Amino acid sequence: MDMQVSFLDRLFDSGLLIDTGVDGLYGRSGQFEDVIAAFERLIDKVGGADGAEAIRFPPGMNRAYFEKSGYMKSFPQLAGTVHSFCGNDHDHAGLLQCLEEGGEWTKDQKATDIALTPAACYPLYPTVAKRGPLPMEGGLFDLQSYCFRHEPSKDPARQQLFRMREYVCMGTEDHVTAFRQTWMDRGVEMMKSIGLDVEIDVANDPFFGRAGRLLANNQRDQNLKFELLIPVTSQTKKTACMSFNYHQDAFGQKWGLNLEDGAVAHTACVGFGLERIALALFAQHGLDVKLWPDHVRKVLWG
Amino acid sequence: MDMQVSFLDRLFDSGLLIDTGVDGLYGRSGQFEDVIAAFERLIDKVGGADGAEAIRFPPGMNRAYFEKSGYMKSFPQLAGTVHSFCGNDHDHAGLLQCLEEGGEWTKDQKATDIALTPAACYPLYPTVAKRGPLPMEGGLFDLQSYCFRHEPSKDPARQQLFRMREYVCMGTEDHVTAFRQTWMDRGVEMMKSIGLDVEIDVANDPFFGRAGRLLANNQRDQNLKFELLIPVTSQTKKTACMSFNYHQDAFGQKWGLNLEDGAVAHTACVGFGLERIALALFAQHGLDVKLWPDHVRKVLWG
Repeated sequence: MDMQVSFLDRLFDSGLLIDTGVDGLYGRSGQFEDVIAAFERLIDKVGGADGAEAIRFPPGMNRAYFEKSGYMKSFPQLAGTVHSFCGNDHDHAGLLQCLEEGGEWTKDQKATDIALTPAACYPLYPTVAKRGPLPMEGGLFDLQSYCFRHEPSKDPARQQLFRMREYVCMGTEDHVTAFRQTWMDRGVEMMKSIGLDVEIDVANDPFFGRAGRLLANNQRDQNLKFELLIPVTSQTKKTACMSFNYHQDAFGQKWGLNLEDGAVAHTACVGFGLERIALALFAQHGLDVKLWPDHVRKVLWG
Repeated sequence: MDMQVSFLDRLFDSGLLIDTGVDGLYGRSGQFEDVIAAFERLIDKVGGADGAEAIRFPPGMNRAYFEKSGYMKSFPQLAGTVHSFCGNDHDHAGLLQCLEEGGEWTKDQKATDIALTPAACYPLYPTVAKRGPLPMEGGLFDLQSYCFRHEPSKDPARQQLFRMREYVCMGTEDHVTAFRQTWMDRGVEMMKSIGLDVEIDVANDPFFGRAGRLLANNQRDQNLKFELLIPVTSQTKKTACMSFNYHQDAFGQKWGLNLEDGAVAHTACVGFGLERIALALFAQHGLDVKLWPDHVRKVLWG
């Protein structure tokens, strides 16, 4: 924890991250953004020949889809719903008085049709399902968006609003598990090429509550989730900078994703935590990008 | 309105925008994003020599700053606050039952410390104020973020989550009003260079309620806001694709922004509605970017 605070303070002092007064909610300097842009170009280079369809969703999604996704069952503590004022002039006067008195004015906000996107791929499944059956050779999608998770923290690698780049593959079990394995290999190579120590380990999602423990154990036992770990604020407790997820046919069933032969599609996704990768680079090579090793600068900026 | 629906349908059919089931909340195709990226490079080219400090805030901001900004006084109907589940296992069981029964589960969500960013510059003022006095030559900042406004609409140019690029200038009255005039001239030239018909007109913000009418009239009378208008879905009711705002010393007073000589800073901002500009290009030159006029393609893609 001390290492996390100390790294966060150094990031604030250097101006790479900007304190907003809320833990896990930071501004980014132009330099920080330039590192993320460079790493995204590296992703494009490595994944580009696969011919994924690029889609960019905004940082919020249809709340009806969010509800159907089951996110509130598994991760209610992390979710964010968007609420708005829906009153008239009279209600507005009351709101302003409440604000003036330092009261809880937000209690009268009403839920809108929008929930914040918890992972870049959540809006994709219903979108693809609406198109009809997938071709037998499957589907491949390239996504990126800001995502929200309500977990205030002094660990700069645990932000409430952060960007996730993802590739999502839909098809047969063999197809999507091979896709996942390809990206595990590529991920290790990419991180090595920018001078980062990596390991891959089996993992589980942070399922909520007592019942969640069972789900987490089940996910581990079936090797459904792997993470690529890099030291950011600690050599012993490393940070997950990529994740590799096989959903079996769970999303296919839920959203009605079928292949042309009528079989339910299996799905897998690989996600890059873009802020975490940038932070891993700053932790490993220092806060001054000009002083990073030449071979790393060459991979990132050519 | 029919023209708006028809243009939105054509955008959906072409795949440039992707229906998410919520009015004003759309996915974007890779092609759509490429147009926005190209236009942002044009902004960089036009504004780059000014030496603005680039900062990128996430799509949410500190709710305490949001409250202090006065947004809930002027535009409560447009604001979005982020709410989360903060209960225990027992509460979670109740939530899931409510969801199961199709009940109003969101009523138990609690407001977090985060409000959605209503305009890219809102998080900037408190950030700059914390740094201490501005140099006498002033400050210039380059911002971009997704912004939220709760105004569901079938007009593709009125989205609930959209990107705003902004330059913000802080300094003396003469300095910031000259900055604003420079960008009005540049904006007209930029839009002409990409084949768009433009005009600039005085404007007002959509202040809420009865009292809002007075504020809007006052803003117009004092020429505090101008908009650059381009036909998107209508030749007669044009769409504001840029705005040019002079805040006098209102934000300087509110946030404690001072110059080195102790004077309260004046501020001005110019904003680009990036989705609106992309839509104006598609409306003017057609949905197939390959068929756009050569001189337009040359300006955007070199």
